[in-house]
Amino acid sequence: MKPSLPKGTRDFSPEQVNKRSYIIDTLKAVFVKYGYQPIETPVMENLSTLTGKYGEEGDKLLFKVLNNGDFLSNANKDALEALDSRKLVSSISKRGLRYDLTVPFARYVVMYQSELSFPFKRYQVQPVWRGDRPQKGRYQEFYQCDVDVVGSDSLLNEVELVQIYDEGYSRLGVECIIKINNRKVLAGMAEAAGIPDKFMEMTVAIDKLDKIGMDGVKKEMAKREIGEDAIQKVENILNTDSLEALKPLFANSETGLQGIAELETVFKYLSQVKLDNEVKFDITLARGLSYYTGTIFEVASTQVQIGSIGGGGRYDDLTGMFGMPNVPGVGVSFGIARIFDIMEELDLFPETTSNSTQLIFLTFDQESFDYAFGALQQVRQAGINAELYPAPVKFKKQMKYANSRNIPYVCIIGSSEVESDQLTFKNMTSGEQQSLPIDEIIAAIVG
Amino acid sequence: MKPSLPKGTRDFSPEQVNKRSYIIDTLKAVFVKYGYQPIETPVMENLSTLTGKYGEEGDKLLFKVLNNGDFLSNANKDALEALDSRKLVSSISKRGLRYDLTVPFARYVVMYQSELSFPFKRYQVQPVWRGDRPQKGRYQEFYQCDVDVVGSDSLLNEVELVQIYDEGYSRLGVECIIKINNRKVLAGMAEAAGIPDKFMEMTVAIDKLDKIGMDGVKKEMAKREIGEDAIQKVENILNTDSLEALKPLFANSETGLQGIAELETVFKYLSQVKLDNEVKFDITLARGLSYYTGTIFEVASTQVQIGSIGGGGRYDDLTGMFGMPNVPGVGVSFGIARIFDIMEELDLFPETTSNSTQLIFLTFDQESFDYAFGALQQVRQAGINAELYPAPVKFKKQMKYANSRNIPYVCIIGSSEVESDQLTFKNMTSGEQQSLPIDEIIAAIVG
Repeated sequence: MKPSLPKGTRDFSPEQVNKRSYIIDTLKAVFVKYGYQPIETPVMENLSTLTGKYGEEGDKLLFKVLNNGDFLSNANKDALEALDSRKLVSSISKRGLRYDLTVPFARYVVMYQSELSFPFKRYQVQPVWRGDRPQKGRYQEFYQCDVDVVGSDSLLNEVELVQIYDEGYSRLGVECIIKINNRKVLAGMAEAAGIPDKFMEMTVAIDKLDKIGMDGVKKEMAKREIGEDAIQKVENILNTDSLEALKPLFANSETGLQGIAELETVFKYLSQVKLDNEVKFDITLARGLSYYTGTIFEVASTQVQIGSIGGGGRYDDLTGMFGMPNVPGVGVSFGIARIFDIMEELDLFPETTSNSTQLIFLTFDQESFDYAFGALQQVRQAGINAELYPAPVKFKKQMKYANSRNIPYVCIIGSSEVESDQLTFKNMTSGEQQSLPIDEIIAAIVG
Repeated sequence: MKPSLPKGTRDFSPEQVNKRSYIIDTLKAVFVKYGYQPIETPVMENLSTLTGKYGEEGDKLLFKVLNNGDFLSNANKDALEALDSRKLVSSISKRGLRYDLTVPFARYVVMYQSELSFPFKRYQVQPVWRGDRPQKGRYQEFYQCDVDVVGSDSLLNEVELVQIYDEGYSRLGVECIIKINNRKVLAGMAEAAGIPDKFMEMTVAIDKLDKIGMDGVKKEMAKREIGEDAIQKVENILNTDSLEALKPLFANSETGLQGIAELETVFKYLSQVKLDNEVKFDITLARGLSYYTGTIFEVASTQVQIGSIGGGGRYDDLTGMFGMPNVPGVGVSFGIARIFDIMEELDLFPETTSNSTQLIFLTFDQESFDYAFGALQQVRQAGINAELYPAPVKFKKQMKYANSRNIPYVCIIGSSEVESDQLTFKNMTSGEQQSLPIDEIIAAIVG
């Protein structure tokens, strides 16, 4: 039997795990610097928690876990007879796999509301599962990385999330542009165009601007029964590139002006901090059919064409779905997989990390093996990650192992080395080879 | 709708995540020091990979994931009509949740055998799922932490796994005893007692010694049709406490003598290294109905009565189940949950970690809030994890937040502080309060 993996899933090799850990650890240090704390939720949630939260399409993509034991004993008999899979599910499956980190977070906040201190600032980095058709770069299991604060409507949170984006990407060496808008500005746009009842239709059309261009957006709006006059007004507003220029256009929209005021506050605080990346007001940023109600964010790489590498926004009511209304919050997420791809493409991962073996001892016989065992202890004692090839087998085989593991330093020990205490020390990068006592080898590596 | 969690699963609060991360990060650093590298495998495996690997009971406890879409269209019609859950499963579910880390590791080694360099030294720390009846301290989702090397029969691996146990537990402050035996010694015992065909029965009985005492073991063996004479011989051997004393008893068992020789080699190398914990030959250690064939390990806390906190051993054939025979290896696992409980009970977690907020600014009005925003940037610039309470609301509310988050330092800013640049700096542990400029506050924290 030849083993395989379920479609859409994958293994992670040591190199991949180390690289992804580098990304995640780097980001976590930034989250913590800004006062965010980690939580973890179980992989399995009750289907009653998940169902209905992601639209009809989402419900279909949820992975459902079969009840243990004799699951048919409680199965819906009508559904069984009619071979109706959809109707049968709830009677044979109570649990599903986490589909995102937002719904479990909302559940968490509701369940522990009496124990939590608000504002509650949490980050969460865990895999999620979706039964999408697998395709290149798209998996059924993938990591999400979310940073949210709930229980506070202060715009300081927005400011700090921008700082977190900026510092997170900066530490990784990923250059980006952070685009900001506010759903109230979009609402103001609909009001100013005289189509407040067409807000969602307009927003969905604008959301496609990147892909279909301004003409496409206009056609899209026309298709959704937005009049020519309104479309012209929307276009005029979309061509506005500063908050100041927007104000007269929003003279009659209180919501629109509030959106502008909020953005101005965010930019006022941001102007006082050092940022490595550009932060830009982008009136065309819409974030689609989301539950956002205030500031919205999106991050794009300025080096690689790869789509958005981060996004988020402010919401009024995260936990209403679980009967706890009026909990405002704001959050962003980092696109771990795309960050990985960018860093791979631009060679941004550090050459050596503290996560791998720095030195390996290779030996010729039992005597030199036993000698190397002693030297190995000294080297590790000095804080160096080190290995001894576990037997004095054919030298070529040992060297092949050292090469394939990309170990930067090799120490070769045979009878003459044992006699003289001068060990053959080879730098595998430069090819340079020296005879040195063990303490000088340690000094050469520790530097 | 009041949300809840599936039975047997749990959330992890920030404090719990930080503590568990402390354990895992500490252990990982040790694994890496000894040349082990991480892999990660998907949560879902094909049921064809999992089924039959954990015995009949294990198959029942596997969580099975329902096929997406119209799963009934390919359902086994006979099983449906007969309402036969067990027979139906394979036709409506192709995937299951990871049950342990060993089978996925074996699958990994087989699938990537041509790319891996052997000996392949891997560690893996991921959750697994089992449909056991939930009870106190027993969950359906829990972390496993495995360290294995395959493709090498060198006893150096055993020596280093003992060092990893010793150093791992020592760094955590968990005092323990590391017990070692060898399945060949147990085989030799069966041979010496004249019951080589009753090896498994004898081993299963001995495995219960801790729980049922020597009399119990003897009764257990009698029940399994081991003769009185043989039982007496087994008891005599079990009462032997040194390898030297064992040799004459094993004079006629080549396997037994080989087991002794292997243990002697392991102890010879261990005698040359510094260990913090006792490593002890324990002839009564059996490790039950396992697939082990050589050295076996078990670790027990010497401070808390909690059962084994680690175990493992050498095996001849990890990957045979997937058609790749003769891959020897040896591995150990760390009992993360029990380590957590011990460290909690003995208060071994570090008081402050780099994972939490060290300083928070509390303010009285918009002016002092804006001032604090500037000071906040300086503090973070100095590498201090810091927060500004996001609005100058009632002071009591802000202080309550600082207290509940256990933030060790508080900086209070009002109009007089803004005027004088002398900020009120409070050490929340000692209660001490001072007026200091921001750079002295930074110096006080960084130390």
